[in-house]
Amino acid sequence: MPRPTKTLLSSLKQLVGQPASAIDTPALVVDLDAMQRNLSRMAEFCRKHEVRWRPHAKMHKSAALARLQLQAGAVGVCVQKTAEAEAMAGGGVTDVYISNEVIAPHKLARVARLAHALAAEGGQLAIAVDSREGIERLAQAMDQARRDAGSGAVIDVFVEIDVGQGRCGVPPGRPAVQLVHEIRKHPALNFAGLQAYHGKAQHIRSAAERREAIGRAATDAAFTRRLIEDEGIKVGLVTGGGTGSMVCEAASGVYGELQAGSFLFMDADYAQNERDPAQPQFEHALFVKTQVMSAGLQHAVCDAGHKSHAIDSGLPKVHDPDGTLHLDYGNGGDEHGILRPAGAGAAVPEIGRTLWLVPGHCDPTVNLHDYLVGVKGGLAEGTVDRIIRIDARGALA
Amino acid sequence: MPRPTKTLLSSLKQLVGQPASAIDTPALVVDLDAMQRNLSRMAEFCRKHEVRWRPHAKMHKSAALARLQLQAGAVGVCVQKTAEAEAMAGGGVTDVYISNEVIAPHKLARVARLAHALAAEGGQLAIAVDSREGIERLAQAMDQARRDAGSGAVIDVFVEIDVGQGRCGVPPGRPAVQLVHEIRKHPALNFAGLQAYHGKAQHIRSAAERREAIGRAATDAAFTRRLIEDEGIKVGLVTGGGTGSMVCEAASGVYGELQAGSFLFMDADYAQNERDPAQPQFEHALFVKTQVMSAGLQHAVCDAGHKSHAIDSGLPKVHDPDGTLHLDYGNGGDEHGILRPAGAGAAVPEIGRTLWLVPGHCDPTVNLHDYLVGVKGGLAEGTVDRIIRIDARGALA
Repeated sequence: MPRPTKTLLSSLKQLVGQPASAIDTPALVVDLDAMQRNLSRMAEFCRKHEVRWRPHAKMHKSAALARLQLQAGAVGVCVQKTAEAEAMAGGGVTDVYISNEVIAPHKLARVARLAHALAAEGGQLAIAVDSREGIERLAQAMDQARRDAGSGAVIDVFVEIDVGQGRCGVPPGRPAVQLVHEIRKHPALNFAGLQAYHGKAQHIRSAAERREAIGRAATDAAFTRRLIEDEGIKVGLVTGGGTGSMVCEAASGVYGELQAGSFLFMDADYAQNERDPAQPQFEHALFVKTQVMSAGLQHAVCDAGHKSHAIDSGLPKVHDPDGTLHLDYGNGGDEHGILRPAGAGAAVPEIGRTLWLVPGHCDPTVNLHDYLVGVKGGLAEGTVDRIIRIDARGALA
Repeated sequence: MPRPTKTLLSSLKQLVGQPASAIDTPALVVDLDAMQRNLSRMAEFCRKHEVRWRPHAKMHKSAALARLQLQAGAVGVCVQKTAEAEAMAGGGVTDVYISNEVIAPHKLARVARLAHALAAEGGQLAIAVDSREGIERLAQAMDQARRDAGSGAVIDVFVEIDVGQGRCGVPPGRPAVQLVHEIRKHPALNFAGLQAYHGKAQHIRSAAERREAIGRAATDAAFTRRLIEDEGIKVGLVTGGGTGSMVCEAASGVYGELQAGSFLFMDADYAQNERDPAQPQFEHALFVKTQVMSAGLQHAVCDAGHKSHAIDSGLPKVHDPDGTLHLDYGNGGDEHGILRPAGAGAAVPEIGRTLWLVPGHCDPTVNLHDYLVGVKGGLAEGTVDRIIRIDARGALA
């Protein structure tokens, strides 16, 4: 019998040109029209604010979508993992920034090989560091790759400072300056600037409090930059910012590049932020199509559980653009969702009924699927336009 | 450049025979010795209690591990999804039970084709139902497959009753009897028994309260069985039970088959249950290997976040068999974990340090990975013995 992973793509490809109603459930579906509007709004925002834009590909993990973003004006992509960088490069993206630390010598050898391969194609690889060990190991790997390739490729290195996230990064100020000096000891490493991403600020609901948090982050980054420049060293770029806070980084006068990625699909969690007046109005573009497979008097059960969507930022919402469904999605475990009427006039949906869920968090939801089904003309009446491979799904290392 | 998914397997295969220390991070690693002990204990338990054992393959999603369970005495496997059933059949497992409802005609056509294919190999497929629509649609699909195949294969059908889970299933008693009569109208459907799984009871911490909950479930199932038998219809089997409650179903005199699957890997959540004295002592056998990639004064950061392990049943625990580490794992987002010393004498782990995490919930953790790395001789000093493909990873539909 054929293995299901081999038959999945061929059955999906047969969907192209079919109505969206033909998509089997559960499936991860992109409203390509909404996605394109999000993309245009982001590109326009960055042009208007004269800020570079390097969207995080850890969200969509698709080289095809990365190329679409590059066409719209992105300068390159960010990734978090070496294997994600390889997937992007393998799909024709030649300007990649690993906005994260890599420590294992085996992985650093891959990083160095990729830096040489991208340089040979006229592109470039960059990476973040936050420790002396990390810098020394990276330099060793780059030196080895230089000997192997017989070429003198350089990797751009950003020093990560912790501006409030409480995760990676050295404290702002002197510790960062010390790392800059370490980087400059190694001819294959080029100090390129500061990584200053405030992940926690993305999910602060109040727009005023987000502005305060990013204001403090920008002050920390500017202070660190000045200390480095006081030593006669140029700080090429301060990079950071996500979909939740991007208007604050863009207005800061400190950040030169935004890393926002989620805007493309716009998950349920970000939609719960109080919108900053300066923020473009992004639309939900990513949906889990699901079907009711059991129905009782009080609730129905659909075929999408947390193997179909991530729940780290809350359960998905039942998409209800006309305000006629009034259904709450409750946790039904790995393979099921519990649907309960919520509000006057709401009814338990019947067996076979199709519903669309808006995931709480796009990034780990996309990582559960092998393909995105792209629909044009709306979810209800639209047509399957293309199948988009999630190249870096499961690219963990 | 080669795509990472193509290079992953070849790099993993090179690990066989290497020390466990050579496994790159993050990776999903099975302690094969612990797994084998769990398997032996389960097989012995089922022999002793004279209960059939059909482990849930939704947990490991691997045909190789299913075959291992069959060799140890399992009668077949359970799955939740049509694509999981196809993956098991594709890997040589010929007795498969979809312990869940399937409604979409497209999927039911696959179910019916699979029922015929397995019958042709001397195996069998079974499925659960909880609605008249489901039964009629299944019968239509089986009739079509009979015409297509020119054969008379039959599918075993279990009526699901809700014994406390509050998800799928009709209420115990009359509604189930009505469905039995519906099933018996169709020559391609064979009424095989009752599906009576109490998922919520698995995670009740108190052993006494678990016994109470399963006692009520068994009463409901026995009552329903008697009503059906009162109409002269044989109830071949009552099937259900998970790792949390299996000793109660085994002792009930009602359940003839246990579906427990998690015992094989034993996740952190189940380890928090008060152990019933009758329960075999299962060991943790599934681990996420991770590495420290950033370290500050107060905390360190490792390279495994919730794209490496599921968090629906809580965050993973840092494996600390010698009681020397005393580290708390905190949420660091998709790609990171925050490690904090917890307790006297504990220290922030250094950059490069390898740690092993025990996932909160095995099933959705396995579903994030493509391969399991099987180690013999212990995690610290052992050797990579084999690479096990997770055949049904992402098999959602």
